[in-house]
Amino acid sequence: MTEPTRAMVEVMSRSEALDRLQRHGFVGRVAFIVGGRPMIMPVNYLADSDALVFCTGEGTKLSALRRGASVAFEVDDSRPLDHSGWSVVIEGTASEITDPEELSWLRRGTLKSWAVRPSAHWIRITYGHVSGRQIPAE
Amino acid sequence: MTEPTRAMVEVMSRSEALDRLQRHGFVGRVAFIVGGRPMIMPVNYLADSDALVFCTGEGTKLSALRRGASVAFEVDDSRPLDHSGWSVVIEGTASEITDPEELSWLRRGTLKSWAVRPSAHWIRITYGHVSGRQIPAE
Repeated sequence: MTEPTRAMVEVMSRSEALDRLQRHGFVGRVAFIVGGRPMIMPVNYLADSDALVFCTGEGTKLSALRRGASVAFEVDDSRPLDHSGWSVVIEGTASEITDPEELSWLRRGTLKSWAVRPSAHWIRITYGHVSGRQIPAE
Repeated sequence: MTEPTRAMVEVMSRSEALDRLQRHGFVGRVAFIVGGRPMIMPVNYLADSDALVFCTGEGTKLSALRRGASVAFEVDDSRPLDHSGWSVVIEGTASEITDPEELSWLRRGTLKSWAVRPSAHWIRITYGHVSGRQIPAE
């Protein structure tokens, strides 16, 4: 077996990782804990430099996310043809958005979830540790 | 605000969801618990009808995955143009593969991780609850 000589993984700076998170858009995945077990859920999201938001329906997942829960959030993109790709992982804290003005703004806003009606609950994730990795083309 | 009239989310059968998991390939995301907090990591994986495998390097994440840990695993695909997509989420149990013959087979096999050398550790996830959702084109 030959060991590859290229650098397999490059590490992004925090600002580069947050830039990717904000520009990528569309679909990310939020991981959280429900009843002591990890759960993962794809969501449509909108991110700025301090926090990201997504909406979700009523249910167990909402209960697990609304009370200052620890979460991890991931976005990635890849090109199978040349085995390249990148990913950004945020460790953060989730809370439900309850301010009526902010909710009204979000419900009128640019983020249209593909799966959830805009009248649903909105969750904010504030960023803790941010990591980004890139695998260059072979 | 007009309420959409289309069915926003269709639910897949377990067999349809596992079929997507096996055919999709390339990149999935594993969620697990490290020190009481959720973590998420993209991996290259290979799935059959009973379990999936991926490889990972030494470290905290490996320690969190090798001892029969509860995990969630997610794959998805989406078409931003028409707001359609699908996702499959597996709730399962992770364990490190230690059988020398199986390891030898895996290291010679078809799964080439883009980020990890094939001499790394291999993790198997056996399937518990399986769910699949599809958002049809608008």
